[in-house]
Amino acid sequence: MSPSLLFTTDSTSPGIREREFTVDGVPGVLWSPASEDAHRAPLVLMAHGGGRHRKHQSMAGRASRLVADQGFHVAVLDLPAHGDRPRSAHDEAEIAEMHRARQAGESVAPVAIRWNAHLAEIAAPEYRALLDALQALPEIGPDGPVGFVGLALGTAIGIPYVASDPRITAAVFGLHWPDELAAHARRITVPVQYAMQWDDEVIPREASLALFDAFASPAKTLHANAGRHMAYPRFEEADSAARFLARHLTH
Amino acid sequence: MSPSLLFTTDSTSPGIREREFTVDGVPGVLWSPASEDAHRAPLVLMAHGGGRHRKHQSMAGRASRLVADQGFHVAVLDLPAHGDRPRSAHDEAEIAEMHRARQAGESVAPVAIRWNAHLAEIAAPEYRALLDALQALPEIGPDGPVGFVGLALGTAIGIPYVASDPRITAAVFGLHWPDELAAHARRITVPVQYAMQWDDEVIPREASLALFDAFASPAKTLHANAGRHMAYPRFEEADSAARFLARHLTH
Repeated sequence: MSPSLLFTTDSTSPGIREREFTVDGVPGVLWSPASEDAHRAPLVLMAHGGGRHRKHQSMAGRASRLVADQGFHVAVLDLPAHGDRPRSAHDEAEIAEMHRARQAGESVAPVAIRWNAHLAEIAAPEYRALLDALQALPEIGPDGPVGFVGLALGTAIGIPYVASDPRITAAVFGLHWPDELAAHARRITVPVQYAMQWDDEVIPREASLALFDAFASPAKTLHANAGRHMAYPRFEEADSAARFLARHLTH
Repeated sequence: MSPSLLFTTDSTSPGIREREFTVDGVPGVLWSPASEDAHRAPLVLMAHGGGRHRKHQSMAGRASRLVADQGFHVAVLDLPAHGDRPRSAHDEAEIAEMHRARQAGESVAPVAIRWNAHLAEIAAPEYRALLDALQALPEIGPDGPVGFVGLALGTAIGIPYVASDPRITAAVFGLHWPDELAAHARRITVPVQYAMQWDDEVIPREASLALFDAFASPAKTLHANAGRHMAYPRFEEADSAARFLARHLTH
C-alpha cells in the first residue's frame, strides 16, 4: 500500500514555496523553489537533531540555501517524540534519564546512544515512506537524485536509513558515536561528507574517527573542526554541504 | 635593506594580469585582477609542491580562481632547486636518493622529510622578503590581509614561514609528515585548513592527524578525503580553500 500524503498548508515567501503535510500521519514540511524550474529538481531529505523539530532554524536555514541557491526540493519530518509528535512513557523515561545524567555531570552517551537507536528503528521506515510519497509527485518524480542531510540524532536516523535505501545518491552526516551505527555505515557506498568536532567533550575523538572510517564509500570526506561539541561551525559546514550536494546531485 | 623586486614581464589575459619578477634574484610570478579593483585587494602567497614550479598548473589553476572569482592578488616563487633555480650537489644527491628509494620500493619519507626541511630553511626567508617587496607596491600596501597556500613541499615551506611571519592572516596546508613541522605548527594561531588523504600509503594516517593536532589555531579544520596519496581531490579542495580564504581575508 502506497503511503498516504496529505498536504495541510501551502504558502510562498520570496523564492520559496512551503507545504506542510502528513505522511501516514507523521508531520513534515516540503520546501520547493517557487518558480517552474522546480519541475524534476533534485530532492534532499533532512533529519533534525535531538530536541528540535521539522521547522527548527537548523533545518529551515539549510533548506532556504538549498532551495534558493541550488533549486532543490527539501523535505523534513518531525522525528518520533519530537515536534508535534507524542512521547511514549519510554521516551519520557529516557529524556528524564538524560537530564539526570547531565545534572549529575555524567556522560549522556549511554542513554543518547540507546534512545537514538530506538528512534531510528521507528524513523527509518518513515523516511522510506516519505520518499515513496514524494517520488509520486509530478514535480519530483521517481528517477531523480536524492540527497540526505542529518547531524547528531539526524545521523543516528540517517545512517541506518541511507544504508537501507538505494535511492539515496549522497549524504551528509556528523556528530555521533559509532556504537550503533558503524555496522550500518559499512553498507553505505555513496559519497559521504562527515563532520566532527576535534575537541568534542561529548563524543571522543577516536569514536568520531572510527565512525568515519567505517563508511564503505570510495568518495568520503571528513571535516574535523577545532572546538568543543557546541562550537560546530554551522554556517561554514552548511555552505560546504550545499556545495557537496550540488556536485553530487547535479551535473 | 629592502628586497630588490624587478618585474621582467607584464601581460594580460581576460581578467588576469600576470607579472613575472625576481626578488633578490629568486624568480616568481604575481597574478592580479586586470581591473582597477585590484587596488589594495587581499594577497595570497602560494608555495608549489615537490618537482613543480611557480607556474605549474596546480598553482596557475588555483590562482586563476582566486584572482578571477575573489579579486585577490596571488604570488608564487620558484622554490630552491625547482623551476628556473639551480640545484646544488647536495640537492642532486637527495633527489638521486629519493629516486633510488622509490625504485627499491622503500619509503621516501626519510629523505623527503630531511630535504624538504633543508629547502624550507632557504625558502622561508625568501617568502618574508617577497612579502616585504609586495607590500611596498601601491596596489597591495602594508596593511592588508595575507593568506598562504601550500601543500606537500609547499606545506614544509609554509608552516615554518607562517609560524615566523605575523602578517599572515589565514593558511591552507596539507599532505606532509609532522616530524620537522609539528614544533612550528604549535606556534601558529591563525585560522588553518589542513588536507590529508585518509588512505595515504606515503604519509601514515596517524602522522597526518598528529600534524593537524599540533596547530595552536583556535579555528582550524581538517579535511580528510578517502583515497591514496595521489587521489587528493584537487578541484574540490581548491574550491573549498578559495571559500576559506574569502571568509578570512575579506568582510
